[in-house]
Amino acid sequence: MGRSANYSRENCAVAACLDVVGEPWTLLIIRDAFAGTTRFEQWQEGLGLARNVLAARLKSLTAQGVFEMRLYCARPRRYEYILTDKGMELRPLIMHMMHWGARHVYGETKPGSEYVHISCGHSLTPGTYCVHCNGPVENGDFSLRTNEEAPTLKDIAKPGFREDLN
Amino acid sequence: MGRSANYSRENCAVAACLDVVGEPWTLLIIRDAFAGTTRFEQWQEGLGLARNVLAARLKSLTAQGVFEMRLYCARPRRYEYILTDKGMELRPLIMHMMHWGARHVYGETKPGSEYVHISCGHSLTPGTYCVHCNGPVENGDFSLRTNEEAPTLKDIAKPGFREDLN
Repeated sequence: MGRSANYSRENCAVAACLDVVGEPWTLLIIRDAFAGTTRFEQWQEGLGLARNVLAARLKSLTAQGVFEMRLYCARPRRYEYILTDKGMELRPLIMHMMHWGARHVYGETKPGSEYVHISCGHSLTPGTYCVHCNGPVENGDFSLRTNEEAPTLKDIAKPGFREDLN
Repeated sequence: MGRSANYSRENCAVAACLDVVGEPWTLLIIRDAFAGTTRFEQWQEGLGLARNVLAARLKSLTAQGVFEMRLYCARPRRYEYILTDKGMELRPLIMHMMHWGARHVYGETKPGSEYVHISCGHSLTPGTYCVHCNGPVENGDFSLRTNEEAPTLKDIAKPGFREDLN
């Protein structure tokens, strides 16, 4: 279970995101973290995932700064995995996937879990607005701006890339 | 290049979404569709993807109702792939992935493309609101409601499942 796809030629932020969270099971590991899971055995039991695959995913997500490890038992040394701010910012992605899967796959049937908006008590249907102007973002009210000079993911991964910018 | 992960035991809408769009390259194919790509050769050239893999992805996305095929040349018969309403509703997912990848992977560097909110002219930072009450959805203002009776993806895929509901 190595890399599923090599996106290193891409210079796109969608590919950059998938490069971190696009491996099989990764987004379900993150979903469970949002629901309170922090420990290896909890994920393993919940997902029924091979231990080596789970270990590889947690290691990669920690190396990428999505999780940080926290010691919860000194003897024997045991760590749990806590979402960083970078990891927490994946929440809208999980919300939108959950909404899409509920609407377009489950349909009239209720899935195993759903977000509820506490303020209004309804099950959450997420809409998108623009943080700069607070206005709604509807079809036709956005465009794609391209930047031909953008570095590829391979460029970004090179040692010293960020330093070269200075 | 068969299925990367078997989510059929899951009864969750996030897994249901990934079951449709979680294969390697799938979300980049959809990203390109939002940018105007409709034809096999355009995707193949843009992504540098093996033809058999691309063909399998387009076939699966069409079977799942994300794309519909449209004849654009009668002799020889050639089809293009158009996002359905179901496919169009993946846009927020792409927007959020693009924003996260730009913010957390590209950082100070500009990626190859970004959404611009036409109304206000800023590059789009997507925020999430609740469609029911129009209120913001902030950390702490939502909870997860579970439904132990939910069918698994395997149950849903069984022939006749939807009819049995009636």
